[in-house]
Amino acid sequence: MSGQPLLNQLMDALCCLPGVGSKSAQRMTFYLLERDREGARHLASVLAESMERIGQCSRCRTYTEAEICTLCANYNRSDSQLCVVETPAEVAAIEQATDYRGRYFVLGGRLSPLDGIGPREIGLDQLAVILDEGQVGELILATNPTVEGEATAHYISEMANGRQITITRIAHGVPLGGDLEYVDSGTLSHAFAGRRMF
Amino acid sequence: MSGQPLLNQLMDALCCLPGVGSKSAQRMTFYLLERDREGARHLASVLAESMERIGQCSRCRTYTEAEICTLCANYNRSDSQLCVVETPAEVAAIEQATDYRGRYFVLGGRLSPLDGIGPREIGLDQLAVILDEGQVGELILATNPTVEGEATAHYISEMANGRQITITRIAHGVPLGGDLEYVDSGTLSHAFAGRRMF
Repeated sequence: MSGQPLLNQLMDALCCLPGVGSKSAQRMTFYLLERDREGARHLASVLAESMERIGQCSRCRTYTEAEICTLCANYNRSDSQLCVVETPAEVAAIEQATDYRGRYFVLGGRLSPLDGIGPREIGLDQLAVILDEGQVGELILATNPTVEGEATAHYISEMANGRQITITRIAHGVPLGGDLEYVDSGTLSHAFAGRRMF
Repeated sequence: MSGQPLLNQLMDALCCLPGVGSKSAQRMTFYLLERDREGARHLASVLAESMERIGQCSRCRTYTEAEICTLCANYNRSDSQLCVVETPAEVAAIEQATDYRGRYFVLGGRLSPLDGIGPREIGLDQLAVILDEGQVGELILATNPTVEGEATAHYISEMANGRQITITRIAHGVPLGGDLEYVDSGTLSHAFAGRRMF
Protein backbone atom coordinates (compact mmCIF):
# COMPACT_ATOMS: atom_id res chain seq x y z
CA MET A 1 0.00 0.00 0.00
CA SER A 2 2.39 2.68 1.19
CA GLY A 3 4.82 1.89 -1.63
CA GLN A 4 2.22 3.17 -4.08
CA PRO A 5 2.23 6.73 -5.39
CA LEU A 6 0.35 9.05 -3.04
CA LEU A 7 -2.17 9.72 -5.81
CA ASN A 8 -3.22 6.05 -5.87
CA GLN A 9 -3.24 5.87 -2.08
CA LEU A 10 -5.65 8.80 -2.03
CA MET A 11 -7.94 7.16 -4.61
CA ASP A 12 -7.97 3.95 -2.55
CA ALA A 13 -8.62 5.83 0.67
CA LEU A 14 -11.59 7.72 -0.82
CA CYS A 15 -13.25 4.37 -1.58
CA CYS A 16 -13.98 3.99 2.15
CA LEU A 17 -16.81 6.51 1.62
CA PRO A 18 -20.18 4.84 1.01
CA GLY A 19 -21.32 5.09 -2.61
CA VAL A 20 -17.84 5.97 -3.85
CA GLY A 21 -16.23 3.49 -6.26
CA SER A 22 -12.87 3.69 -7.98
CA LYS A 23 -14.16 5.90 -10.80
CA SER A 24 -15.69 8.49 -8.45
CA ALA A 25 -12.63 8.32 -6.22
CA GLN A 26 -10.42 9.15 -9.20
CA ARG A 27 -12.65 12.05 -10.16
CA MET A 28 -12.62 13.36 -6.60
CA THR A 29 -8.84 13.05 -6.36
CA PHE A 30 -8.15 15.10 -9.47
CA TYR A 31 -10.87 17.59 -8.65
CA LEU A 32 -9.45 18.28 -5.20
CA LEU A 33 -5.85 18.55 -6.45
CA GLU A 34 -6.80 20.84 -9.30
CA ARG A 35 -9.44 23.03 -7.79
CA ASP A 36 -9.97 22.74 -4.07
CA ARG A 37 -6.85 21.94 -2.07
CA GLU A 38 -8.04 24.29 0.66
CA GLY A 39 -11.36 22.47 0.98
CA ALA A 40 -9.56 19.13 1.03
CA ARG A 41 -7.19 20.27 3.77
CA HIS A 42 -10.14 21.48 5.80
CA LEU A 43 -11.94 18.16 5.22
CA ALA A 44 -8.87 16.22 6.34
CA SER A 45 -8.60 18.12 9.59
CA VAL A 46 -12.33 18.03 10.42
CA LEU A 47 -12.43 14.33 9.53
CA ALA A 48 -9.49 13.47 11.79
CA GLU A 49 -10.86 15.58 14.64
CA SER A 50 -14.33 14.06 14.26
CA MET A 51 -13.11 10.47 14.39
CA GLU A 52 -11.07 11.26 17.50
CA ARG A 53 -13.54 13.37 19.41
CA ILE A 54 -17.10 12.38 18.46
CA GLY A 55 -18.52 9.93 20.97
CA GLN A 56 -21.94 9.30 22.46
CA CYS A 57 -24.10 11.72 24.40
CA SER A 58 -24.10 10.42 27.97
CA ARG A 59 -27.86 10.92 28.16
CA CYS A 60 -29.45 10.04 24.80
CA ARG A 61 -26.53 8.15 23.23
CA THR A 62 -26.55 10.10 19.94
CA TYR A 63 -23.27 11.31 18.44
CA THR A 64 -21.65 14.37 19.95
CA GLU A 65 -18.18 15.62 20.84
CA ALA A 66 -19.56 17.04 24.09
CA GLU A 67 -20.66 15.28 27.26
CA ILE A 68 -24.30 16.14 26.46
CA CYS A 69 -25.56 16.68 22.88
CA THR A 70 -27.16 19.94 21.75
CA LEU A 71 -30.63 18.36 21.69
CA CYS A 72 -30.39 17.13 25.29
CA ALA A 73 -28.86 20.43 26.39
CA ASN A 74 -31.64 22.49 24.78
CA TYR A 75 -33.89 23.85 27.55
CA ASN A 76 -36.59 24.77 25.03
CA ARG A 77 -37.36 21.15 24.25
CA SER A 78 -40.00 19.26 26.18
CA ASP A 79 -38.97 16.56 28.64
CA SER A 80 -42.45 15.08 28.52
CA GLN A 81 -41.98 13.37 25.16
CA LEU A 82 -39.24 10.82 24.50
CA CYS A 83 -38.71 9.32 21.05
CA VAL A 84 -36.80 6.05 20.83
CA VAL A 85 -34.89 5.42 17.57
CA GLU A 86 -32.30 2.90 16.45
CA THR A 87 -29.54 5.16 15.11
CA PRO A 88 -28.28 8.77 15.30
CA ALA A 89 -29.04 9.14 11.56
CA GLU A 90 -32.72 8.65 12.42
CA VAL A 91 -32.58 11.52 14.91
CA ALA A 92 -31.35 13.74 12.08
CA ALA A 93 -34.09 12.44 9.75
CA ILE A 94 -36.86 13.14 12.28
CA GLU A 95 -35.44 16.58 13.11
CA GLN A 96 -35.42 17.50 9.42
CA ALA A 97 -38.87 16.10 8.58
CA THR A 98 -41.03 16.89 11.59
CA ASP A 99 -41.64 19.64 14.12
CA TYR A 100 -41.11 17.30 17.06
CA ARG A 101 -39.76 19.25 20.04
CA GLY A 102 -39.27 16.50 22.62
CA ARG A 103 -36.24 14.41 23.54
CA TYR A 104 -34.65 11.37 21.91
CA PHE A 105 -33.11 8.12 23.01
CA VAL A 106 -30.81 6.30 20.58
CA LEU A 107 -30.59 2.53 20.98
CA GLY A 108 -27.64 2.16 18.62
CA GLY A 109 -29.14 -1.05 17.25
CA ARG A 110 -32.03 -3.40 17.96
CA LEU A 111 -32.56 -6.49 20.06
CA SER A 112 -31.01 -9.45 18.29
CA PRO A 113 -30.27 -12.26 20.76
CA LEU A 114 -28.64 -14.45 18.09
CA ASP A 115 -26.03 -11.73 17.52
CA GLY A 116 -25.55 -11.28 21.25
CA ILE A 117 -27.37 -7.95 21.28
CA GLY A 118 -29.52 -7.88 24.38
CA PRO A 119 -31.26 -5.10 26.38
CA ARG A 120 -27.96 -3.96 27.92
CA GLU A 121 -26.22 -3.53 24.56
CA ILE A 122 -28.93 -1.18 23.31
CA GLY A 123 -28.88 0.87 26.52
CA LEU A 124 -32.23 -0.13 27.97
CA ASP A 125 -30.85 0.11 31.52
CA GLN A 126 -30.03 3.74 30.73
CA LEU A 127 -33.51 4.25 29.25
CA ALA A 128 -35.04 2.83 32.45
CA VAL A 129 -33.14 5.41 34.50
CA ILE A 130 -34.61 8.22 32.36
CA LEU A 131 -38.14 6.80 32.68
CA ASP A 132 -37.64 6.51 36.45
CA GLU A 133 -37.07 10.26 36.63
CA GLY A 134 -40.83 10.52 36.04
CA GLN A 135 -40.82 13.39 33.55
CA VAL A 136 -41.69 11.39 30.45
CA GLY A 137 -45.42 11.44 29.69
CA GLU A 138 -45.30 9.95 26.19
CA LEU A 139 -42.84 7.37 24.94
CA ILE A 140 -42.75 7.31 21.12
CA LEU A 141 -41.41 4.07 19.69
CA ALA A 142 -39.83 4.88 16.31
CA THR A 143 -37.81 1.72 15.72
CA ASN A 144 -37.88 0.39 12.18
CA PRO A 145 -40.76 -1.84 11.01
CA THR A 146 -38.55 -4.92 10.71
CA VAL A 147 -38.89 -8.11 12.74
CA GLU A 148 -36.15 -7.02 15.18
CA GLY A 149 -37.42 -3.44 15.24
CA GLU A 150 -40.93 -4.60 16.17
CA ALA A 151 -39.58 -6.99 18.80
CA THR A 152 -37.50 -4.17 20.27
CA ALA A 153 -40.54 -1.88 20.36
CA HIS A 154 -42.53 -4.59 22.17
CA TYR A 155 -39.77 -5.18 24.68
CA ILE A 156 -39.52 -1.47 25.49
CA SER A 157 -43.30 -1.06 25.76
CA GLU A 158 -43.44 -3.88 28.32
CA MET A 159 -40.57 -2.32 30.18
CA ALA A 160 -42.46 1.00 30.35
CA ASN A 161 -45.74 -0.62 31.34
CA GLY A 162 -46.82 -0.01 34.92
CA ARG A 163 -45.48 3.54 34.84
CA GLN A 164 -47.76 6.50 34.11
CA ILE A 165 -46.59 6.70 30.50
CA THR A 166 -48.53 6.78 27.23
CA ILE A 167 -46.74 4.52 24.78
CA THR A 168 -47.15 5.28 21.06
CA ARG A 169 -45.72 3.81 17.89
CA ILE A 170 -45.15 5.84 14.69
CA ALA A 171 -47.63 4.90 11.94
CA HIS A 172 -46.65 2.40 9.29
CA GLY A 173 -48.50 2.19 6.01
CA VAL A 174 -48.48 3.30 2.41
CA PRO A 175 -45.94 6.13 2.02
CA LEU A 176 -47.20 9.50 0.79
CA GLY A 177 -47.09 9.70 -2.97
CA GLY A 178 -46.87 5.91 -3.03
CA ASP A 179 -49.06 3.95 -5.38
CA LEU A 180 -51.19 1.14 -3.89
CA GLU A 181 -50.48 -0.95 -6.94
CA TYR A 182 -46.72 -0.87 -6.47
CA VAL A 183 -46.43 -0.95 -2.71
CA ASP A 184 -45.09 -4.25 -1.34
CA SER A 185 -47.69 -6.64 -0.02
CA GLY A 186 -46.39 -6.58 3.56
CA THR A 187 -46.82 -2.81 3.75
CA LEU A 188 -50.22 -2.94 2.09
CA SER A 189 -51.49 -5.66 4.40
CA HIS A 190 -50.17 -3.73 7.41
CA ALA A 191 -51.80 -0.51 6.17
CA PHE A 192 -55.10 -2.29 5.59
CA ALA A 193 -55.18 -3.96 8.99
CA GLY A 194 -54.22 -0.69 10.67
CA ARG A 195 -57.01 1.37 9.06
CA ARG A 196 -58.50 4.10 11.19
CA MET A 197 -61.73 6.17 11.41
CA PHE A 198 -61.75 8.84 8.72
CA MET B 1 -18.76 27.56 11.41
CA SER B 2 -16.50 26.42 14.24
CA GLY B 3 -19.26 27.13 16.78
CA GLN B 4 -21.30 24.35 15.16
CA PRO B 5 -21.28 20.78 16.46
CA LEU B 6 -18.43 18.80 14.94
CA LEU B 7 -20.98 16.49 13.29
CA ASN B 8 -22.38 19.39 11.24
CA GLN B 9 -18.90 20.69 10.46
CA LEU B 10 -18.03 17.26 9.06
CA MET B 11 -21.17 17.17 6.91
CA ASP B 12 -20.35 20.63 5.54
CA ALA B 13 -16.73 19.71 4.89
CA LEU B 14 -17.70 16.58 2.94
CA CYS B 15 -19.69 18.76 0.54
CA CYS B 16 -16.38 19.95 -0.96
CA LEU B 17 -16.22 16.59 -2.75
CA PRO B 18 -17.62 16.73 -6.30
CA GLY B 19 -21.00 15.03 -6.60
CA VAL B 20 -21.60 15.08 -2.86
CA GLY B 21 -24.57 17.13 -1.65
CA SER B 22 -25.88 17.59 1.86
CA LYS B 23 -27.87 14.35 1.81
CA SER B 24 -24.90 12.20 0.74
CA ALA B 25 -22.64 14.06 3.16
CA GLN B 26 -24.99 13.18 6.01
CA ARG B 27 -25.05 9.54 4.95
CA MET B 28 -21.24 9.45 4.73
CA THR B 29 -20.85 11.08 8.13
CA PHE B 30 -23.03 8.55 9.95
CA TYR B 31 -21.58 5.65 8.00
CA LEU B 32 -18.01 6.58 8.91
CA LEU B 33 -18.79 7.19 12.58
CA GLU B 34 -20.76 3.96 12.89
CA ARG B 35 -18.76 1.56 10.81
CA ASP B 36 -15.43 2.77 9.53
CA ARG B 37 -13.61 5.15 11.86
CA GLU B 38 -10.33 3.47 10.95
CA GLY B 39 -10.91 4.06 7.22
CA ALA B 40 -11.88 7.66 7.91
CA ARG B 41 -8.73 8.28 9.97
CA HIS B 42 -6.66 6.80 7.17
CA LEU B 43 -8.47 8.96 4.61
CA ALA B 44 -7.86 12.08 6.69
CA SER B 45 -4.14 11.45 6.91
CA VAL B 46 -3.67 10.50 3.24
CA LEU B 47 -5.78 13.49 2.20
CA ALA B 48 -3.75 15.93 4.27
CA GLU B 49 -0.46 14.44 3.10
CA SER B 50 -1.58 14.48 -0.55
CA MET B 51 -2.60 18.14 -0.49
CA GLU B 52 0.73 19.04 1.10
CA ARG B 53 3.06 16.90 -0.95
CA ILE B 54 1.59 16.27 -4.39
CA GLY B 55 3.02 18.68 -6.92
CA GLN B 56 3.98 18.49 -10.58
CA CYS B 57 6.47 16.14 -12.22
CA SER B 58 9.37 18.33 -13.29
CA ARG B 59 9.45 16.63 -16.67
CA CYS B 60 5.87 15.85 -17.79
CA ARG B 61 3.98 18.11 -15.36
CA THR B 62 1.56 15.41 -14.18
CA TYR B 63 0.77 15.05 -10.46
CA THR B 64 3.36 13.34 -8.30
CA GLU B 65 4.85 13.70 -4.85
CA ALA B 66 8.30 12.91 -6.29
CA GLU B 67 10.62 15.03 -8.44
CA ILE B 68 9.88 12.76 -11.41
CA CYS B 69 6.61 10.79 -11.75
CA THR B 70 6.56 7.00 -12.02
CA LEU B 71 5.71 7.16 -15.72
CA CYS B 72 8.68 9.39 -16.57
CA ALA B 73 10.95 7.32 -14.32
CA ASN B 74 9.92 4.04 -15.96
CA TYR B 75 12.80 2.82 -18.17
CA ASN B 76 10.54 0.31 -19.91
CA ARG B 77 8.52 3.03 -21.59
CA SER B 78 9.49 4.32 -25.00
CA ASP B 79 10.98 7.80 -25.34
CA SER B 80 10.08 7.83 -29.01
CA GLN B 81 6.40 8.53 -28.44
CA LEU B 82 5.12 11.57 -26.58
CA CYS B 83 1.45 12.08 -25.88
CA VAL B 84 0.27 15.61 -25.08
CA VAL B 85 -2.83 15.90 -22.89
CA GLU B 86 -4.54 18.72 -21.06
CA THR B 87 -4.82 17.33 -17.53
CA PRO B 88 -3.30 14.66 -15.27
CA ALA B 89 -6.72 12.96 -15.10
CA GLU B 90 -6.39 12.30 -18.83
CA VAL B 91 -3.05 10.55 -18.33
CA ALA B 92 -4.84 8.20 -15.92
CA ALA B 93 -7.70 7.70 -18.38
CA ILE B 94 -5.33 6.81 -21.26
CA GLU B 95 -3.27 4.51 -19.05
CA GLN B 96 -6.40 2.62 -18.04
CA ALA B 97 -7.96 2.40 -21.50
CA THR B 98 -5.06 1.77 -23.86
CA ASP B 99 -1.80 -0.15 -24.07
CA TYR B 100 0.19 2.99 -24.89
CA ARG B 101 3.76 2.60 -23.60
CA GLY B 102 5.28 5.97 -24.47
CA ARG B 103 5.68 9.18 -22.49
CA TYR B 104 3.25 11.98 -21.65
CA PHE B 105 3.29 15.72 -21.45
CA VAL B 106 0.58 17.46 -19.42
CA LEU B 107 -0.33 20.99 -20.47
CA GLY B 108 -2.43 21.69 -17.41
CA GLY B 109 -4.91 23.59 -19.56
CA ARG B 110 -5.29 24.81 -23.12
CA LEU B 111 -4.44 27.96 -24.98
CA SER B 112 -6.99 30.62 -24.16
CA PRO B 113 -5.62 34.10 -24.83
CA LEU B 114 -8.76 35.80 -23.49
CA ASP B 115 -8.11 34.20 -20.09
CA GLY B 116 -4.43 35.10 -20.25
CA ILE B 117 -3.41 31.49 -20.88
CA GLY B 118 -0.63 31.55 -23.47
CA PRO B 119 2.06 29.07 -24.56
CA ARG B 120 4.14 29.71 -21.43
CA GLU B 121 1.28 28.97 -19.04
CA ILE B 122 0.70 25.54 -20.57
CA GLY B 123 4.42 24.71 -20.49
CA LEU B 124 5.17 24.80 -24.20
CA ASP B 125 8.70 26.11 -23.52
CA GLN B 126 9.25 22.98 -21.46
CA LEU B 127 7.77 20.83 -24.24
CA ALA B 128 10.16 22.47 -26.73
CA VAL B 129 13.12 21.45 -24.55
CA ILE B 130 11.95 17.83 -24.62
CA LEU B 131 11.48 17.91 -28.39
CA ASP B 132 14.98 19.46 -28.75
CA GLU B 133 16.45 16.39 -27.07
CA GLY B 134 15.70 14.63 -30.36
CA GLN B 135 14.35 11.37 -29.00
CA VAL B 136 10.70 11.92 -29.81
CA GLY B 137 9.71 10.32 -33.12
CA GLU B 138 5.96 10.64 -32.78
CA LEU B 139 4.09 13.45 -31.08
CA ILE B 140 0.53 12.40 -30.27
CA LEU B 141 -1.83 15.31 -29.78
CA ALA B 142 -4.56 14.19 -27.39
CA THR B 143 -6.03 17.51 -26.39
CA ASN B 144 -9.82 17.58 -26.14
CA PRO B 145 -11.91 18.10 -29.29
CA THR B 146 -13.09 21.52 -28.19
CA VAL B 147 -12.32 24.81 -29.92
CA GLU B 148 -9.47 25.63 -27.55
CA GLY B 149 -8.23 22.06 -27.56
CA GLU B 150 -8.06 22.05 -31.38
CA ALA B 151 -6.35 25.43 -31.40
CA THR B 152 -3.83 24.18 -28.88
CA ALA B 153 -3.18 21.07 -31.01
CA HIS B 154 -2.61 23.28 -34.06
CA TYR B 155 -0.25 25.54 -32.18
CA ILE B 156 1.80 22.61 -30.94
CA SER B 157 1.91 20.97 -34.35
CA GLU B 158 3.32 24.15 -35.86
CA MET B 159 5.82 24.38 -33.07
CA ALA B 160 7.00 20.82 -33.82
CA ASN B 161 7.08 21.32 -37.56
CA GLY B 162 10.54 21.46 -39.06
CA ARG B 163 11.82 18.77 -36.68
CA GLN B 164 11.98 15.13 -37.70
CA ILE B 165 8.77 14.32 -35.88
CA THR B 166 5.60 12.58 -37.01
CA ILE B 167 2.67 14.48 -35.60
CA THR B 168 -0.56 12.58 -34.99
CA ARG B 169 -3.91 13.44 -33.50
CA ILE B 170 -6.14 10.91 -31.73
CA ALA B 171 -9.12 9.93 -33.87
CA HIS B 172 -12.37 11.75 -33.58
CA GLY B 173 -14.27 8.83 -32.21
CA VAL B 174 -14.41 10.91 -29.07
CA PRO B 175 -17.73 12.74 -29.20
CA LEU B 176 -17.33 16.48 -29.79
CA GLY B 177 -17.69 18.51 -26.63
CA GLY B 178 -16.92 15.36 -24.65
CA ASP B 179 -14.25 15.22 -22.04
CA LEU B 180 -11.48 12.59 -22.27
CA GLU B 181 -11.71 11.89 -18.58
CA TYR B 182 -15.33 10.79 -18.75
CA VAL B 183 -15.46 8.96 -22.08
CA ASP B 184 -16.03 5.19 -21.86
CA SER B 185 -12.80 3.26 -22.18
CA GLY B 186 -13.83 1.42 -25.37
CA THR B 187 -14.34 4.68 -27.27
CA LEU B 188 -11.15 6.12 -25.85
CA SER B 189 -9.15 3.04 -26.78
CA HIS B 190 -10.64 3.13 -30.31
CA ALA B 191 -9.84 6.80 -30.71
CA PHE B 192 -6.32 6.24 -29.47
CA ALA B 193 -5.62 3.32 -31.79
CA GLY B 194 -7.22 5.12 -34.75
CA ARG B 195 -5.02 8.22 -34.58
CA ARG B 196 -4.17 9.65 -37.99
CA MET B 197 -1.57 11.92 -39.57
CA PHE B 198 -2.15 15.48 -38.46
